[in-house]
This record gives sequence, structure tokens and C-alpha cells, in this order.
Amino acid sequence: MTKTPTWAFDDLAVGQTFALGPKHVTAGEIVAFASEFDMQPMHLDEEAGKASLLGGLAASGWHTCAMFMRMACDTLLLDSTSQGAPGVEYARWRRPVLAGDTLSGEAEVIALRRSEKRPQLGYVTFRHRLRNQRGELVFELEHAGMFLTRDAIS
Amino acid sequence: MTKTPTWAFDDLAVGQTFALGPKHVTAGEIVAFASEFDMQPMHLDEEAGKASLLGGLAASGWHTCAMFMRMACDTLLLDSTSQGAPGVEYARWRRPVLAGDTLSGEAEVIALRRSEKRPQLGYVTFRHRLRNQRGELVFELEHAGMFLTRDAIS
Repeated sequence: MTKTPTWAFDDLAVGQTFALGPKHVTAGEIVAFASEFDMQPMHLDEEAGKASLLGGLAASGWHTCAMFMRMACDTLLLDSTSQGAPGVEYARWRRPVLAGDTLSGEAEVIALRRSEKRPQLGYVTFRHRLRNQRGELVFELEHAGMFLTRDAIS
Repeated sequence: MTKTPTWAFDDLAVGQTFALGPKHVTAGEIVAFASEFDMQPMHLDEEAGKASLLGGLAASGWHTCAMFMRMACDTLLLDSTSQGAPGVEYARWRRPVLAGDTLSGEAEVIALRRSEKRPQLGYVTFRHRLRNQRGELVFELEHAGMFLTRDAIS
């Protein structure tokens, strides 16, 4: 770590928000991700996407998760004491993410809990939301991440 | 679609399982995914991984999700009437996925529900599990996917 992180467990409060994005999503990115991880036709081909429930060349839901994660890294995690996360409470792909869309949103702290076993660690529950350029909700995710306390790094 | 898919909604039954993997996970794959989507040090560097809770160069949890999805495509989805999924009920990263690990597991059908609004569509709830080469559970995921009925494609 080259500098002391700005955000430790103690610095986060319920109701606090961090901006996510904007992230422009290209057809090339959609196809590259899908070719490796999710080769369903609606994620690989414009015509197949149009013929599907999704209505166009659409990002794999897992690609949306991965793009969300990059936005969370950029806005908070890389300048924090994040120690990863044990899992995801839920994820909802509310609307298709189509080639050409621009995603933005926010990460909101909804709960904080210090670890009982490890006093220098705390769990931070976030609700994340992403919208497209028309303001339509496309993605929701709730998860709890683990962060070191400021004591642990000072 | 070049052939009629083997698996439609009607062909799936509660308790049925599909094998996932094996998938060998390389350091190069871990770093490539993390460089694009999750640049936390424990996903980019062996030493940083060893110094972290994860104990070594470890795949991003989202990379594990993406690798799971590829296994699900290979075992079932690409030869099915899958129409995607509205979300994830939960995901648990139970243990780190480290460079050199080999993942395998199963997708189990745990519930089936025909859509009320769209009689030619059904929801299939799966519980997915992945283990490493030591048989340790590393990943669990529950989600409901949408599949067309056989009527819809015949």
C-alpha cells in the first residue's frame, strides 16, 4: 500500500453514498466478455439479441456485475481498507444493458457491524444501483464487504 | 439456433443435477480478469494475496461467478431454451479460489414454476456448488433462470 487509505470501517456511516460510473458500454466489450464466459446468442450477436427477450445485443448479467465492481473499485474500494466480501445478498438485473448504454448510479451504506471475533474488522452492507442514460434502473445489488478499522492500519 | 435444444422447461425436474467443470484456474486468468474489473491487490499479485485474508493470489469473486457461468453454459445453457435470468438469490464465496486450483461441482434444480403471464415460459431455480481439488466448497449460488417450454419451440 503506497498511502494510507482514505476509507476505513470507522469512516463509513449508514446513509453515505459513493457515485458509481459513468461507464459507457460498447458492443465490443459485451461480445468479448460473453465469448469467454457466457456464450448465449443474445450476448454475442445483435440479431439474436433483437430476437430475444432482451431486445438487442445485451451484456451478460455477470458482465454487468463485473462492470459494477470496476466502478466500485474506482469510487471507493481501491482507496479503502477493503478485505473482500463473503458473498452477495441478492442481485437483480432489472432491465437489459444494451450496447451503447451508459451506466451510472450509487453505492449506499445501509448497515455497519463490527466483527465480534476480529475487533479490527467490520462488515459494511451496501445497496448498489445502476441506471442507464434514460434514468431507468438496470441493476441492483446488495452485499456486505469486510473493511479493516483505522486502528488496524495506524 | 442450429438444432432443437435438448433442454426445455418441461425437461427439467426437481433434484436433477448437471456436472459443472472441471475448470483449471491459472494465475494469468486471475490477473487478466482483475486488471479489467477488480484491481484489488490480492487479485493482482501473489505477495499481496499472501498478505491478505485470502492467503495467495486469489480470483475476484466476480471472476468465480463468471467462470461458473461458463461451466453452466457448457453443461446446460447452450443446449437449452434459456432466456436469461432476472437475478441472483444469493452468492457465497466460501473459500478463496487460488491460482492453480481446479473447480468442479454441480447445478441442481431445486424448484420449477411456470410463468402465469407467459404460459410458454417457466422459472427454474438452481442451486450451484463448486469445490476445489481438495473437495472443499468454494462457491455457492442460487438463482432462477427463465426457460421456454417445449411447446414454444416446436
